[in-house]
Amino acid sequence: MKLLRYGPKGAEKPGALDAGGVIRDLSGVSADFEGDAVSCEMIAKLKGLDLSSLPAVEGEPRIGSCVARAPNFFCIGLNYARHAAETGATPPTEPIIFAKATSALSGPFDDVIIPKGSTKPDWETELGVVIGAHVEHVSEADALSVVAGYCVINDVSERCWQLERGPTWMKGKSAPTFGPTGPWLVTADEVPDPQALELYLELSGGMVQKSTTADMIFSVRQIVSYMSSLFALQPGDIIATGTPEGVGMGMKPQRWLKPGDVMRTGVEGLGEQKTKVVAYSG
Amino acid sequence: MKLLRYGPKGAEKPGALDAGGVIRDLSGVSADFEGDAVSCEMIAKLKGLDLSSLPAVEGEPRIGSCVARAPNFFCIGLNYARHAAETGATPPTEPIIFAKATSALSGPFDDVIIPKGSTKPDWETELGVVIGAHVEHVSEADALSVVAGYCVINDVSERCWQLERGPTWMKGKSAPTFGPTGPWLVTADEVPDPQALELYLELSGGMVQKSTTADMIFSVRQIVSYMSSLFALQPGDIIATGTPEGVGMGMKPQRWLKPGDVMRTGVEGLGEQKTKVVAYSG
Repeated sequence: MKLLRYGPKGAEKPGALDAGGVIRDLSGVSADFEGDAVSCEMIAKLKGLDLSSLPAVEGEPRIGSCVARAPNFFCIGLNYARHAAETGATPPTEPIIFAKATSALSGPFDDVIIPKGSTKPDWETELGVVIGAHVEHVSEADALSVVAGYCVINDVSERCWQLERGPTWMKGKSAPTFGPTGPWLVTADEVPDPQALELYLELSGGMVQKSTTADMIFSVRQIVSYMSSLFALQPGDIIATGTPEGVGMGMKPQRWLKPGDVMRTGVEGLGEQKTKVVAYSG
Repeated sequence: MKLLRYGPKGAEKPGALDAGGVIRDLSGVSADFEGDAVSCEMIAKLKGLDLSSLPAVEGEPRIGSCVARAPNFFCIGLNYARHAAETGATPPTEPIIFAKATSALSGPFDDVIIPKGSTKPDWETELGVVIGAHVEHVSEADALSVVAGYCVINDVSERCWQLERGPTWMKGKSAPTFGPTGPWLVTADEVPDPQALELYLELSGGMVQKSTTADMIFSVRQIVSYMSSLFALQPGDIIATGTPEGVGMGMKPQRWLKPGDVMRTGVEGLGEQKTKVVAYSG
Protein backbone atom coordinates (compact mmCIF):
# COMPACT_ATOMS: atom_id res chain seq x y z
CA MET A 1 0.00 0.00 0.00
CA LYS A 2 1.25 3.48 -0.88
CA LEU A 3 0.33 5.98 1.81
CA LEU A 4 0.79 9.68 1.25
CA ARG A 5 -0.18 13.09 2.52
CA TYR A 6 -1.70 15.64 0.17
CA GLY A 7 -2.71 19.26 0.39
CA PRO A 8 -1.16 22.60 1.26
CA LYS A 9 1.87 22.66 3.55
CA GLY A 10 0.72 22.42 7.15
CA ALA A 11 -2.79 21.30 6.17
CA GLU A 12 -2.08 17.93 4.57
CA LYS A 13 -4.58 15.07 4.74
CA PRO A 14 -3.82 11.35 4.74
CA GLY A 15 -4.39 9.50 1.51
CA ALA A 16 -3.45 6.39 -0.41
CA LEU A 17 -2.62 5.74 -4.03
CA ASP A 18 -5.00 3.17 -5.53
CA ALA A 19 -4.10 0.62 -8.19
CA GLY A 20 -5.13 3.06 -10.92
CA GLY A 21 -2.85 5.82 -9.59
CA VAL A 22 -5.74 7.82 -8.13
CA ILE A 23 -5.32 9.37 -4.68
CA ARG A 24 -8.03 8.25 -2.27
CA ASP A 25 -8.82 10.43 0.73
CA LEU A 26 -8.19 8.57 4.00
CA SER A 27 -9.05 11.44 6.32
CA GLY A 28 -12.35 9.78 7.21
CA VAL A 29 -10.60 6.61 8.36
CA SER A 30 -7.19 7.70 9.65
CA ALA A 31 -5.54 10.48 11.60
CA ASP A 32 -2.75 12.33 9.81
CA PHE A 33 0.24 10.03 9.26
CA GLU A 34 2.35 10.66 12.33
CA GLY A 35 3.15 8.74 15.50
CA ASP A 36 0.69 5.97 16.27
CA ALA A 37 -1.19 6.55 13.00
CA VAL A 38 1.72 4.81 11.24
CA SER A 39 2.08 2.02 13.77
CA CYS A 40 2.25 -1.45 12.25
CA GLU A 41 -1.11 -2.11 13.90
CA MET A 42 -2.84 0.86 12.27
CA ILE A 43 -1.29 0.08 8.91
CA ALA A 44 -2.63 -3.48 9.14
CA LYS A 45 -6.09 -1.96 9.55
CA LEU A 46 -5.60 0.39 6.58
CA LYS A 47 -4.60 -2.54 4.41
CA GLY A 48 -8.05 -4.01 4.98
CA LEU A 49 -9.72 -1.00 3.36
CA ASP A 50 -11.44 -1.16 -0.01
CA LEU A 51 -9.80 1.93 -1.52
CA SER A 52 -12.32 2.08 -4.34
CA SER A 53 -15.02 2.89 -1.77
CA LEU A 54 -13.14 5.96 -0.52
CA PRO A 55 -13.40 9.44 -2.05
CA ALA A 56 -11.13 10.06 -5.05
CA VAL A 57 -9.12 13.27 -4.74
CA GLU A 58 -9.73 15.64 -7.64
CA GLY A 59 -7.00 17.52 -9.46
CA GLU A 60 -3.30 17.36 -8.74
CA PRO A 61 -2.78 18.43 -5.17
CA ARG A 62 0.61 19.11 -3.65
CA ILE A 63 2.14 16.03 -2.03
CA GLY A 64 3.63 16.52 1.44
CA SER A 65 6.21 14.47 3.30
CA CYS A 66 4.71 10.98 3.62
CA VAL A 67 4.88 11.17 7.42
CA ALA A 68 4.51 14.28 9.55
CA ARG A 69 5.95 15.52 12.82
CA ALA A 70 8.41 12.65 13.21
CA PRO A 71 9.48 12.20 16.83
CA ASN A 72 13.02 11.93 15.44
CA PHE A 73 14.59 12.28 12.02
CA PHE A 74 17.56 9.96 12.43
CA CYS A 75 20.31 9.44 9.88
CA ILE A 76 23.02 6.85 9.42
CA GLY A 77 26.37 8.21 8.26
CA LEU A 78 28.83 6.72 5.81
CA ASN A 79 26.81 3.55 5.31
CA TYR A 80 28.00 2.72 1.79
CA ALA A 81 31.62 1.73 1.40
CA ARG A 82 32.25 3.68 -1.81
CA HIS A 83 30.66 6.80 -0.30
CA ALA A 84 32.88 6.51 2.76
CA ALA A 85 35.85 6.24 0.41
CA GLU A 86 34.88 9.31 -1.64
CA THR A 87 34.66 11.43 1.52
CA GLY A 88 38.08 10.21 2.62
CA ALA A 89 36.63 8.49 5.70
CA THR A 90 37.42 5.05 7.04
CA PRO A 91 34.34 2.81 6.76
CA PRO A 92 32.71 2.68 10.19
CA THR A 93 32.84 -0.47 12.32
CA GLU A 94 29.42 0.25 13.79
CA PRO A 95 26.62 2.50 12.51
CA ILE A 96 27.16 6.26 12.82
CA ILE A 97 23.96 7.88 14.12
CA PHE A 98 23.03 11.52 13.93
CA ALA A 99 19.84 13.50 13.51
CA LYS A 100 18.34 16.19 11.35
CA ALA A 101 16.13 18.78 13.06
CA THR A 102 12.59 17.57 12.39
CA SER A 103 11.75 20.99 10.95
CA ALA A 104 13.81 19.94 7.91
CA LEU A 105 11.00 17.57 6.80
CA SER A 106 9.72 18.60 3.39
CA GLY A 107 7.54 17.40 0.54
CA PRO A 108 8.97 15.36 -2.35
CA PHE A 109 8.18 18.04 -4.94
CA ASP A 110 8.75 21.13 -2.80
CA ASP A 111 11.63 23.44 -3.64
CA VAL A 112 14.90 22.82 -1.83
CA ILE A 113 16.04 26.18 -0.47
CA ILE A 114 19.76 26.90 -0.23
CA PRO A 115 19.95 28.47 3.21
CA LYS A 116 21.32 31.92 3.90
CA GLY A 117 25.11 31.81 4.10
CA SER A 118 25.42 28.35 2.58
CA THR A 119 28.49 27.71 0.44
CA LYS A 120 28.49 23.91 0.06
CA PRO A 121 24.96 22.55 -0.39
CA ASP A 122 24.99 18.89 -1.43
CA TRP A 123 22.60 16.01 -2.16
CA GLU A 124 22.18 12.48 -0.78
CA THR A 125 19.64 9.99 -2.10
CA GLU A 126 18.66 7.49 0.59
CA LEU A 127 16.36 4.67 1.52
CA GLY A 128 14.13 5.91 4.34
CA VAL A 129 12.73 3.61 7.02
CA VAL A 130 9.68 4.57 9.09
CA ILE A 131 9.34 2.84 12.45
CA GLY A 132 5.97 1.32 13.36
CA ALA A 133 6.29 0.37 17.02
CA HIS A 134 7.68 1.35 20.39
CA VAL A 135 10.81 -0.76 20.46
CA GLU A 136 13.89 -1.40 22.56
CA HIS A 137 16.37 -4.24 22.12
CA VAL A 138 14.86 -5.82 19.03
CA SER A 139 17.00 -8.57 17.53
CA GLU A 140 18.24 -8.42 13.94
CA ALA A 141 15.98 -11.38 13.19
CA ASP A 142 12.90 -9.46 14.32
CA ALA A 143 13.97 -5.95 13.29
CA LEU A 144 12.02 -5.72 10.05
CA SER A 145 8.78 -6.57 11.88
CA VAL A 146 8.85 -3.14 13.57
CA VAL A 147 9.21 -1.26 10.26
CA ALA A 148 5.99 0.42 9.13
CA GLY A 149 7.28 1.14 5.66
CA TYR A 150 9.89 2.62 3.39
CA CYS A 151 10.26 5.85 1.45
CA VAL A 152 12.65 7.98 -0.57
CA ILE A 153 14.63 10.60 1.34
CA ASN A 154 17.02 13.23 0.05
CA ASP A 155 19.30 13.96 3.01
CA VAL A 156 20.26 17.40 1.74
CA SER A 157 23.45 18.56 3.46
CA GLU A 158 25.49 21.70 3.89
CA ARG A 159 29.05 20.35 4.01
CA CYS A 160 30.72 23.38 5.55
CA TRP A 161 28.17 23.50 8.37
CA GLN A 162 28.32 19.72 8.78
CA LEU A 163 32.07 19.26 8.84
CA GLU A 164 33.83 22.54 9.49
CA ARG A 165 31.81 23.95 12.37
CA GLY A 166 32.31 21.58 15.29
CA PRO A 167 32.40 17.89 16.11
CA THR A 168 28.79 16.88 15.42
CA TRP A 169 26.95 16.84 12.10
CA MET A 170 23.47 18.14 12.85
CA LYS A 171 24.19 21.77 11.86
CA GLY A 172 24.64 20.91 8.21
CA LYS A 173 21.67 18.58 7.92
CA SER A 174 18.80 20.57 9.33
CA ALA A 175 17.91 23.65 7.28
CA PRO A 176 14.28 24.04 6.20
CA THR A 177 13.54 21.85 3.12
CA PHE A 178 16.68 19.74 3.71
CA GLY A 179 14.54 16.61 4.20
CA PRO A 180 12.34 15.83 1.17
CA THR A 181 10.57 12.61 2.22
CA GLY A 182 8.19 10.59 0.05
CA PRO A 183 6.24 10.70 -2.22
CA TRP A 184 4.86 7.57 -0.60
CA LEU A 185 5.23 5.57 2.55
CA VAL A 186 5.28 2.13 0.93
CA THR A 187 4.13 -0.35 3.54
CA ALA A 188 6.69 -2.95 4.53
CA ASP A 189 4.75 -5.88 3.03
CA GLU A 190 5.48 -4.45 -0.44
CA VAL A 191 9.24 -4.39 0.18
CA PRO A 192 10.24 -8.01 0.74
CA ASP A 193 13.98 -7.25 0.72
CA PRO A 194 15.13 -3.70 1.58
CA GLN A 195 18.69 -4.72 0.65
CA ALA A 196 17.86 -5.25 -3.02
CA LEU A 197 16.68 -1.82 -4.14
CA GLU A 198 18.29 0.37 -6.76
CA LEU A 199 18.53 4.03 -5.82
CA TYR A 200 19.67 7.07 -7.73
CA LEU A 201 19.86 10.80 -7.94
CA GLU A 202 19.84 12.64 -11.22
CA LEU A 203 21.02 16.23 -11.01
CA SER A 204 19.91 18.62 -13.75
CA GLY A 205 19.79 15.82 -16.29
CA GLY A 206 22.98 13.96 -15.33
CA MET A 207 23.00 10.83 -13.22
CA VAL A 208 25.26 11.48 -10.24
CA GLN A 209 24.28 8.69 -7.83
CA LYS A 210 23.34 5.21 -8.95
CA SER A 211 23.73 2.28 -6.64
CA THR A 212 21.86 -0.40 -4.77
CA THR A 213 20.99 -0.91 -1.13
CA ALA A 214 22.86 -4.21 -1.43
CA ASP A 215 25.99 -2.10 -0.98
CA MET A 216 25.04 -0.85 2.46
CA ILE A 217 27.65 -1.58 5.11
CA PHE A 218 24.95 -2.06 7.74
CA SER A 219 21.61 -3.47 6.60
CA VAL A 220 18.24 -2.11 7.69
CA ARG A 221 17.95 -5.10 10.05
CA GLN A 222 21.29 -4.28 11.61
CA ILE A 223 20.59 -0.55 11.86
CA VAL A 224 17.20 -0.93 13.53
CA SER A 225 18.46 -3.58 15.95
CA TYR A 226 21.57 -1.55 16.77
CA MET A 227 19.68 1.69 17.36
CA SER A 228 17.18 -0.09 19.58
CA SER A 229 20.04 -1.31 21.77
CA LEU A 230 20.99 2.29 22.55
CA PHE A 231 17.61 4.00 22.86
CA ALA A 232 13.91 3.52 22.29
CA LEU A 233 12.48 3.90 18.81
CA GLN A 234 8.95 5.24 18.43
CA PRO A 235 6.18 4.97 15.81
CA GLY A 236 6.76 7.61 13.17
CA ASP A 237 10.50 7.86 13.72
CA ILE A 238 12.27 8.26 10.39
CA ILE A 239 15.67 6.73 9.67
CA ALA A 240 17.59 7.87 6.59
CA THR A 241 19.88 4.90 6.07
CA GLY A 242 22.84 6.53 4.35
CA THR A 243 23.79 7.52 0.84
CA PRO A 244 25.85 5.80 -1.85
CA GLU A 245 28.77 7.40 -3.67
CA GLY A 246 28.26 10.29 -6.04
CA VAL A 247 27.69 13.26 -3.77
CA GLY A 248 29.07 16.66 -4.75
CA MET A 249 31.61 16.66 -1.94
CA GLY A 250 33.28 13.60 -3.48
CA MET A 251 33.64 15.02 -6.99
CA LYS A 252 36.84 16.45 -8.40
CA PRO A 253 36.34 19.35 -8.54
CA GLN A 254 33.65 19.41 -5.90
CA ARG A 255 30.21 20.38 -7.12
CA TRP A 256 27.54 22.11 -5.07
CA LEU A 257 23.84 22.63 -5.62
CA LYS A 258 22.94 25.94 -7.22
CA PRO A 259 19.70 27.77 -7.86
CA GLY A 260 17.95 26.30 -10.88
CA ASP A 261 19.26 22.77 -10.37
CA VAL A 262 16.65 20.04 -10.48
CA MET A 263 17.05 16.79 -8.54
CA ARG A 264 15.25 13.59 -9.43
CA THR A 265 15.67 11.25 -6.52
CA GLY A 266 14.37 7.70 -6.48
CA VAL A 267 14.46 4.29 -4.87
CA GLU A 268 13.17 1.21 -6.68
CA GLY A 269 9.49 0.65 -5.93
CA LEU A 270 9.24 3.70 -3.69
CA GLY A 271 8.63 6.40 -6.27
CA GLU A 272 10.57 9.46 -7.31
CA GLN A 273 11.01 12.96 -5.96
CA LYS A 274 11.55 15.97 -8.18
CA THR A 275 12.81 19.05 -6.41
CA LYS A 276 14.00 22.36 -7.73
CA VAL A 277 16.85 24.13 -5.99
CA VAL A 278 16.20 27.78 -5.21
CA ALA A 279 18.08 30.58 -3.49
CA TYR A 280 17.12 31.77 -0.03
CA SER A 281 14.89 34.77 -0.34
CA GLY A 282 14.30 35.78 3.28
CA MET B 1 3.72 30.88 36.03
CA LYS B 2 4.85 27.32 36.73
CA LEU B 3 3.37 24.92 34.21
CA LEU B 4 3.62 21.18 34.73
CA ARG B 5 2.22 17.86 33.63
CA TYR B 6 0.86 15.43 36.18
CA GLY B 7 -0.46 11.88 36.12
CA PRO B 8 0.71 8.44 35.07
CA LYS B 9 3.38 8.16 32.38
CA GLY B 10 1.76 8.51 28.97
CA ALA B 11 -1.49 9.89 30.44
CA GLU B 12 -0.31 13.20 31.89
CA LYS B 13 -2.58 16.22 32.07
CA PRO B 14 -1.56 19.88 31.93
CA GLY B 15 -1.52 21.75 35.20
CA ALA B 16 -0.08 24.77 36.95
CA LEU B 17 1.28 25.34 40.41
CA ASP B 18 -0.64 28.08 42.22
CA ALA B 19 0.81 30.55 44.72
CA GLY B 20 -0.01 28.18 47.57
CA GLY B 21 1.85 25.27 45.97
CA VAL B 22 -1.35 23.49 44.92
CA ILE B 23 -1.54 21.93 41.46
CA ARG B 24 -4.47 23.25 39.44
CA ASP B 25 -5.86 21.16 36.61
CA LEU B 26 -5.55 22.98 33.26
CA SER B 27 -6.95 20.18 31.12
CA GLY B 28 -10.21 22.11 30.69
CA VAL B 29 -8.40 25.13 29.27
CA SER B 30 -5.30 23.79 27.52
CA ALA B 31 -4.15 20.90 25.38
CA ASP B 32 -1.29 18.84 26.77
CA PHE B 33 1.90 20.91 26.87
CA GLU B 34 3.50 20.15 23.54
CA GLY B 35 4.00 22.03 20.29
CA ASP B 36 1.67 24.98 19.86
CA ALA B 37 0.24 24.52 23.38
CA VAL B 38 3.48 26.02 24.69
CA SER B 39 3.69 28.79 22.11
CA CYS B 40 4.33 32.22 23.58
CA GLU B 41 0.83 33.14 22.41
CA MET B 42 -0.86 30.30 24.29
CA ILE B 43 1.20 30.95 27.39
CA ALA B 44 0.12 34.60 27.33
CA LYS B 45 -3.47 33.35 27.44
CA LEU B 46 -2.76 30.96 30.30
CA LYS B 47 -1.24 33.79 32.29
CA GLY B 48 -4.60 35.52 32.21
CA LEU B 49 -6.25 32.63 34.07
CA ASP B 50 -7.46 32.90 37.65
CA LEU B 51 -5.86 29.69 38.92
CA SER B 52 -7.98 29.71 42.08
CA SER B 53 -11.05 29.14 39.92
CA LEU B 54 -9.61 25.94 38.44
CA PRO B 55 -9.91 22.46 40.01
CA ALA B 56 -7.28 21.68 42.65
CA VAL B 57 -5.61 18.33 42.08
CA GLU B 58 -5.97 16.00 45.04
CA GLY B 59 -3.16 13.92 46.49
CA GLU B 60 0.41 13.80 45.24
CA PRO B 61 0.35 12.71 41.63
CA ARG B 62 3.42 11.77 39.66
CA ILE B 63 4.94 14.73 37.81
CA GLY B 64 5.87 14.14 34.17
CA SER B 65 8.31 16.02 31.96
CA CYS B 66 7.04 19.61 31.82
CA VAL B 67 6.67 19.41 28.04
CA ALA B 68 5.76 16.36 26.00
CA ARG B 69 6.63 15.03 22.56
CA ALA B 70 9.22 17.72 21.82
CA PRO B 71 9.81 18.12 18.07
CA ASN B 72 13.50 18.11 18.95
CA PHE B 73 15.52 17.62 22.12
CA PHE B 74 18.57 19.71 21.28
CA CYS B 75 21.68 20.00 23.41
CA ILE B 76 24.62 22.38 23.46
CA GLY B 77 27.98 20.76 24.15
CA LEU B 78 30.89 22.07 26.22
CA ASN B 79 29.19 25.38 26.98
CA TYR B 80 30.93 26.09 30.31
CA ALA B 81 34.65 26.81 30.18
CA ARG B 82 35.57 24.80 33.28
CA HIS B 83 33.54 21.82 32.03
CA ALA B 84 35.33 21.95 28.68
CA ALA B 85 38.61 21.99 30.59
CA GLU B 86 37.71 19.00 32.76
CA THR B 87 36.90 16.91 29.69
CA GLY B 88 40.21 17.89 28.09
CA ALA B 89 38.48 19.72 25.26
CA THR B 90 39.31 23.11 23.80
CA PRO B 91 36.48 25.56 24.48
CA PRO B 92 34.39 25.83 21.31
CA THR B 93 34.46 28.95 19.18
CA GLU B 94 30.81 28.52 18.20
CA PRO B 95 28.05 26.47 19.88
CA ILE B 96 28.27 22.68 19.52
CA ILE B 97 24.82 21.32 18.69
CA PHE B 98 23.64 17.74 19.03
CA ALA B 99 20.39 16.01 19.90
CA LYS B 100 19.03 13.43 22.27
CA ALA B 101 16.40 11.02 20.91
CA THR B 102 13.10 12.50 22.06
CA SER B 103 12.21 9.13 23.63
CA ALA B 104 14.75 10.00 26.36
CA LEU B 105 12.31 12.58 27.83
CA SER B 106 11.46 11.64 31.39
CA GLY B 107 9.80 12.98 34.52
CA PRO B 108 11.78 14.90 37.16
CA PHE B 109 11.16 12.27 39.86
CA ASP B 110 11.19 9.15 37.67
CA ASP B 111 13.98 6.63 38.13
CA VAL B 112 16.99 7.00 35.86
CA ILE B 113 17.68 3.58 34.37
CA ILE B 114 21.26 2.59 33.61
CA PRO B 115 20.85 1.03 30.18
CA LYS B 116 21.83 -2.52 29.32
CA GLY B 117 25.55 -2.70 28.59
CA SER B 118 26.34 0.73 30.01
CA THR B 119 29.71 1.13 31.70
CA LYS B 120 30.07 4.91 32.05
CA PRO B 121 26.74 6.53 33.00
CA ASP B 122 27.19 10.16 34.00
CA TRP B 123 25.16 13.22 35.03
CA GLU B 124 24.82 16.77 33.73
CA THR B 125 22.69 19.45 35.37
CA GLU B 126 21.53 22.02 32.84
CA LEU B 127 19.33 25.02 32.22
CA GLY B 128 16.63 23.97 29.76
CA VAL B 129 15.04 26.36 27.29
CA VAL B 130 11.67 25.65 25.67
CA ILE B 131 10.98 27.42 22.39
CA GLY B 132 7.64 29.20 21.96
CA ALA B 133 7.51 30.14 18.29
CA HIS B 134 8.33 29.08 14.76
CA VAL B 135 11.56 30.95 14.23
CA GLU B 136 14.35 31.38 11.71
CA HIS B 137 17.08 34.01 11.77
CA VAL B 138 16.15 35.68 15.04
CA SER B 139 18.69 38.26 16.21
CA GLU B 140 20.41 37.99 19.58
CA ALA B 141 18.52 41.09 20.64
CA ASP B 142 15.17 39.41 19.97
CA ALA B 143 16.10 35.84 20.85
CA LEU B 144 14.61 35.74 24.35
CA SER B 145 11.24 36.84 22.99
CA VAL B 146 10.80 33.42 21.31
CA VAL B 147 11.47 31.50 24.54
CA ALA B 148 8.33 30.07 26.13
CA GLY B 149 10.04 29.26 29.40
CA TYR B 150 12.84 27.56 31.29
CA CYS B 151 13.21 24.29 33.17
CA VAL B 152 15.71 22.00 34.85
CA ILE B 153 17.21 19.23 32.68
CA ASN B 154 19.55 16.42 33.63
CA ASP B 155 21.32 15.55 30.38
CA VAL B 156 22.19 12.02 31.53
CA SER B 157 25.01 10.64 29.39
CA GLU B 158 26.74 7.34 28.68
CA ARG B 159 30.32 8.43 28.06
CA CYS B 160 31.52 5.30 26.31
CA TRP B 161 28.61 5.38 23.89
CA GLN B 162 28.99 9.14 23.43
CA LEU B 163 32.71 9.33 22.83
CA GLU B 164 34.10 5.91 21.95
CA ARG B 165 31.59 4.69 19.39
CA GLY B 166 31.83 7.02 16.44
CA PRO B 167 32.09 10.69 15.57
CA THR B 168 28.71 11.98 16.78
CA TRP B 169 27.36 12.14 20.32
CA MET B 170 23.72 11.10 20.08
CA LYS B 171 24.31 7.43 20.97
CA GLY B 172 25.33 8.22 24.52
CA LYS B 173 22.62 10.78 25.20
CA SER B 174 19.44 9.03 24.24
CA ALA B 175 18.61 6.01 26.41
CA PRO B 176 15.15 5.90 27.98
CA THR B 177 15.03 8.10 31.13
CA PHE B 178 18.19 9.98 30.08
CA GLY B 179 16.24 13.25 29.90
CA PRO B 180 14.57 14.20 33.21
CA THR B 181 12.91 17.54 32.39
CA GLY B 182 11.04 19.71 34.87
CA PRO B 183 9.42 19.76 37.39
CA TRP B 184 8.06 22.99 35.95
CA LEU B 185 8.12 24.96 32.78
CA VAL B 186 8.66 28.38 34.36
CA THR B 187 7.34 30.94 31.93
CA ALA B 188 9.93 33.36 30.57
CA ASP B 189 8.45 36.41 32.30
CA GLU B 190 9.55 34.92 35.64
CA VAL B 191 13.18 34.58 34.51
CA PRO B 192 14.36 38.11 33.79
CA ASP B 193 17.99 37.06 33.29
CA PRO B 194 18.74 33.45 32.28
CA GLN B 195 22.47 34.20 32.70
CA ALA B 196 22.20 34.78 36.44
CA LEU B 197 20.94 31.44 37.74
CA GLU B 198 22.74 29.12 40.13
CA LEU B 199 22.56 25.47 39.18
CA TYR B 200 23.73 22.34 40.95
CA LEU B 201 23.66 18.59 41.13
CA GLU B 202 23.99 16.74 44.40
CA LEU B 203 24.84 13.07 44.04
CA SER B 204 23.94 10.76 46.91
CA GLY B 205 24.40 13.55 49.45
CA GLY B 206 27.56 15.18 48.05
CA MET B 207 27.52 18.30 45.92
CA VAL B 208 29.28 17.49 42.64
CA GLN B 209 28.18 20.36 40.38
CA LYS B 210 27.67 23.90 41.61
CA SER B 211 27.94 26.81 39.24
CA THR B 212 26.03 29.62 37.64
CA THR B 213 24.70 30.22 34.15
CA ALA B 214 26.85 33.38 34.18
CA ASP B 215 29.71 31.04 33.29
CA MET B 216 28.19 29.87 30.02
CA ILE B 217 30.45 30.41 27.04
CA PHE B 218 27.43 31.12 24.81
CA SER B 219 24.42 32.77 26.41
CA VAL B 220 20.84 31.67 25.82
CA ARG B 221 20.43 34.68 23.51
CA GLN B 222 23.45 33.63 21.49
CA ILE B 223 22.43 29.96 21.36
CA VAL B 224 18.88 30.61 20.18
CA SER B 225 19.97 33.16 17.60
CA TYR B 226 22.77 30.91 16.36
CA MET B 227 20.58 27.81 16.06
CA SER B 228 17.93 29.79 14.21
CA SER B 229 20.53 30.82 11.63
CA LEU B 230 21.09 27.15 10.74
CA PHE B 231 17.58 25.69 10.93
CA ALA B 232 14.04 26.46 12.01
CA LEU B 233 13.10 26.17 15.66
CA GLN B 234 9.56 25.10 16.55
CA PRO B 235 7.23 25.56 19.52
CA GLY B 236 7.96 22.86 22.06
CA ASP B 237 11.57 22.34 21.00
CA ILE B 238 13.76 21.79 24.05
CA ILE B 239 17.33 23.05 24.27
CA ALA B 240 19.57 21.77 27.05
CA THR B 241 22.14 24.55 27.22
CA GLY B 242 25.18 22.68 28.51
CA THR B 243 26.54 21.61 31.87
CA PRO B 244 29.09 23.17 34.23
CA GLU B 245 32.12 21.35 35.63
CA GLY B 246 31.71 18.49 38.06
CA VAL B 247 30.61 15.57 35.90
CA GLY B 248 31.86 12.08 36.70
CA MET B 249 33.98 11.90 33.57
CA GLY B 250 36.07 14.83 34.83
CA MET B 251 36.82 13.37 38.27
CA LYS B 252 40.07 11.69 39.22
CA PRO B 253 39.39 8.84 39.45
CA GLN B 254 36.35 9.00 37.19
CA ARG B 255 33.05 8.28 38.91
CA TRP B 256 30.00 6.76 37.26
CA LEU B 257 26.38 6.51 38.34
CA LYS B 258 25.48 3.26 40.07
CA PRO B 259 22.22 1.68 41.17
CA GLY B 260 21.03 3.26 44.39
CA ASP B 261 22.52 6.68 43.69
CA VAL B 262 20.17 9.61 44.14
CA MET B 263 20.53 12.83 42.15
CA ARG B 264 19.12 16.16 43.28
CA THR B 265 19.30 18.47 40.32
CA GLY B 266 18.27 22.10 40.44
CA VAL B 267 18.38 25.50 38.82
CA GLU B 268 17.61 28.65 40.77
CA GLY B 269 13.91 29.50 40.53
CA LEU B 270 13.10 26.49 38.37
CA GLY B 271 12.66 23.83 41.06
CA GLU B 272 14.50 20.64 41.81
CA GLN B 273 14.48 17.11 40.44
CA LYS B 274 15.11 14.07 42.58
CA THR B 275 15.86 10.91 40.66
CA LYS B 276 16.98 7.50 41.84
CA VAL B 277 19.41 5.54 39.70
CA VAL B 278 18.38 1.94 39.05
CA ALA B 279 19.79 -0.98 37.10
CA TYR B 280 18.26 -2.08 33.82
CA SER B 281 15.88 -4.91 34.46
CA GLY B 282 14.71 -5.84 30.96
